[in-house]
Amino acid sequence: MRVLTALPVFLLTTVTALIPGLTLADDTYRFDEQTLQAIHDLSDTALESDLAYEITRSLTTEIGPRLAGTAQEARAREWAVAKLTGLGFENVRVEPFDLDLWTRGTSVIEEAAITAPYPQHLHAISLGGAAATPDEGLEAEVVFFSSFDDLLAFDDSDDALAGKLVFINDRMVATRTGEGYGWANRKRQKAWFHAEDRGAAGVLIRSVGTSSNRFAHTGMMSRPEGRKAKIPALAVSAPDADQIERIHESGETLRVRLKTSAGWRGEATSGNVIAEITGAEAPEEIVIIGAHLDSWDNGTGALDDGAGVGIVTAAAKLIMDAGQRPRRTIRVVLFGAEEVGLIGARAYAQARKDDGTLANHVIGSESDFGAREIWRLNSNVGEHALPFFDAMHVQMQHLGITRGNNEGNGGPDMYPLQYMGMPVAGLDQNGEDYFEFHHTPNDTFDKIVPAEMAQNVAAWVMFTWLVADTDMTFRPGME
Amino acid sequence: MRVLTALPVFLLTTVTALIPGLTLADDTYRFDEQTLQAIHDLSDTALESDLAYEITRSLTTEIGPRLAGTAQEARAREWAVAKLTGLGFENVRVEPFDLDLWTRGTSVIEEAAITAPYPQHLHAISLGGAAATPDEGLEAEVVFFSSFDDLLAFDDSDDALAGKLVFINDRMVATRTGEGYGWANRKRQKAWFHAEDRGAAGVLIRSVGTSSNRFAHTGMMSRPEGRKAKIPALAVSAPDADQIERIHESGETLRVRLKTSAGWRGEATSGNVIAEITGAEAPEEIVIIGAHLDSWDNGTGALDDGAGVGIVTAAAKLIMDAGQRPRRTIRVVLFGAEEVGLIGARAYAQARKDDGTLANHVIGSESDFGAREIWRLNSNVGEHALPFFDAMHVQMQHLGITRGNNEGNGGPDMYPLQYMGMPVAGLDQNGEDYFEFHHTPNDTFDKIVPAEMAQNVAAWVMFTWLVADTDMTFRPGME
Repeated sequence: MRVLTALPVFLLTTVTALIPGLTLADDTYRFDEQTLQAIHDLSDTALESDLAYEITRSLTTEIGPRLAGTAQEARAREWAVAKLTGLGFENVRVEPFDLDLWTRGTSVIEEAAITAPYPQHLHAISLGGAAATPDEGLEAEVVFFSSFDDLLAFDDSDDALAGKLVFINDRMVATRTGEGYGWANRKRQKAWFHAEDRGAAGVLIRSVGTSSNRFAHTGMMSRPEGRKAKIPALAVSAPDADQIERIHESGETLRVRLKTSAGWRGEATSGNVIAEITGAEAPEEIVIIGAHLDSWDNGTGALDDGAGVGIVTAAAKLIMDAGQRPRRTIRVVLFGAEEVGLIGARAYAQARKDDGTLANHVIGSESDFGAREIWRLNSNVGEHALPFFDAMHVQMQHLGITRGNNEGNGGPDMYPLQYMGMPVAGLDQNGEDYFEFHHTPNDTFDKIVPAEMAQNVAAWVMFTWLVADTDMTFRPGME
Repeated sequence: MRVLTALPVFLLTTVTALIPGLTLADDTYRFDEQTLQAIHDLSDTALESDLAYEITRSLTTEIGPRLAGTAQEARAREWAVAKLTGLGFENVRVEPFDLDLWTRGTSVIEEAAITAPYPQHLHAISLGGAAATPDEGLEAEVVFFSSFDDLLAFDDSDDALAGKLVFINDRMVATRTGEGYGWANRKRQKAWFHAEDRGAAGVLIRSVGTSSNRFAHTGMMSRPEGRKAKIPALAVSAPDADQIERIHESGETLRVRLKTSAGWRGEATSGNVIAEITGAEAPEEIVIIGAHLDSWDNGTGALDDGAGVGIVTAAAKLIMDAGQRPRRTIRVVLFGAEEVGLIGARAYAQARKDDGTLANHVIGSESDFGAREIWRLNSNVGEHALPFFDAMHVQMQHLGITRGNNEGNGGPDMYPLQYMGMPVAGLDQNGEDYFEFHHTPNDTFDKIVPAEMAQNVAAWVMFTWLVADTDMTFRPGME
């Protein structure tokens, strides 16, 4: 039958439909009865458990905002060590690393206002990496760009942007996959240096995100070749961007005043918090499940990514409590400094490359897309392992999960490891309203629905148990 | 048939159901064909018109926030005079009045933070009438009350509240009528003096309103016998109130720091803006349709009450443009200083009492509950005029409007006139999500749906034309 797998999918489908008796026996992976019993018991337990919810409640209440490199993030690491130790994990430890510290200044409050033609307050927030205004603030005329592409194409041979504030108005669209984010993010990441190079005094963007609520959306700016911005760069909320757009359309000259003390503060320490369930038979083989501990400073990081911390920690704990150790080691990694450029993830991957344990990482995944239900199982593994994932998916169908494709990603903090060849899985959450809350003050604990979170944990215990208790390899060419 | 109207309603219903040929001819009011043609033409025009939307766009963009007694409110009056004059209204004028000015200080930004046990920022806003903290701020322990009633019942014989911050956690429920607002508002209006009398250093309340968004909800505090608060009083957003509640439940001592420069600033001027369509046959008889021009300072007052300004102004303008003057004068009144205690409405009513024209006010109504569709026609008129209103309702059924009862109110700025005996009608809007936005930064123009606003105007042109072009009286005992 093997030959059939080389046929185009539509033909394969046709053949199996025409010949009812034909089954692709060689391609169907079957879990043994004991394994099936184990994962369904775990799923049942997870659906009844509020552990993930309670962990996230604890983190978001007792720490709250936890910007990378700050004392708040350090407190979050202490919280995580205490929590993971208290839950009974092994080898709980912090792996520290250094980073360039950026903060908003003394407060999350920054000042922005239209001064002409119609004076009024704006809801705005500095983007990560942006510079301060002068102490007395900065007031300048706004030059309106409908899109980031318009800025790129702008002919500034007459220094038309010198001393001006560049405003960019691109809108993001809501999707279940969140796929509009990358495109919408270009202005957030790159507008500053295009504007700075053209002599602009600062940058304003319509908030990335899909919310019509009056919250400005922060997030990190790019740093090409380590460059640091010399100009302020802020996002304004969608209703404020609408206001700017309406005034622009009126033809009046628009002036805005900004005051922020945002900026780089030298070197600081962050760290990844690691905890394990040592494998019974192949302890050196590692299944890594992750989330990130840091958050933006304007919310309490409940969806991004307190929920992920709760989900993967609870999943590992439920496996630990099920009474039987899996073959392989399950390593929970709560990454530091994700928001500011995957600094923790890069440090983790580099350390594994350096100590030679990278190849021991069998597979990994991160929960970092909120707390809504998981709707799709993606993979990014060797072809030989696809039947294993297809069979895993069959077992997850009671959770309403569909089978995606083999081009999945494992979440942001898996990127460096994935880039270095580690297979990943994607337990994809419904992101339709994720960007209503993400990176705004509105990312708070009340936005989490306990039953949806429990569904996440149910999928994670099944996935984690199956990949940790098998001797199946997932790397391409390793069958 | 008259006797039937004295029977209980259920019996009346039974009788008419049992005797198909029976009609209540005496009680059925019928508009003449010309009137029917006029109001349906007006309704059709209104449903196609974006005038209300454009007026509201102009006010919220070109003025934005307009707190009573401030320069912003004065600019709004100038805007209104120019707009009403430009639209062709007659007798456009401002009736000024004085008020005690209260402002938040130099900025809409106030500082609030939990300092212990888990330091983090709070989203908070002073309530109207609250006092400033000392310049350096105020930090104190929080005493948690689940409800306002618990504060009232609290035994403070041991000075347990002295120097503390009183926190009150009552939750408001969302309804179509908004009827939960009054109850929920008790804490906003009255907690400060109960707390101040018990020696408290300040008051914090869970925001009135139904939003789970991280916006704090402002609004005026009561001033019994003109008393002014000596302590700060702020609302925190629902997610922040949740945070305070969780920390309270943990048993830890909670401390909060506040910094605000809110306070009374002496006497200032506000004013009502008035415009008319002079009646063709009985110009001294006045139908008053109103809205309020002032808004809270944290939003742009789009739903409260820029929408009302747009709706009643557009309704009057469409009648003006229909080519036929109604019998009576239609008076559009855009009230000042509604939010801070119906100061404009009281001044208007007092002036009419003083100049003897109160009795000329045939009927009135205000649009001040957002911009969602009108779902109910209420009245508060003499019994003899009920058939007129029932017949009016029949003509509004194509707009999806139900007939309410005769215990309606005409909106906040009609209260003083209604109290003095003026009949009113209530064109009740769907308020299910009104308190998601009301009195928060989130009250912005993008929240208005043009088609819903047009439906409002359609109902208002029908109502306004019918009451202005009739010789029907509406006062009880005036048949």
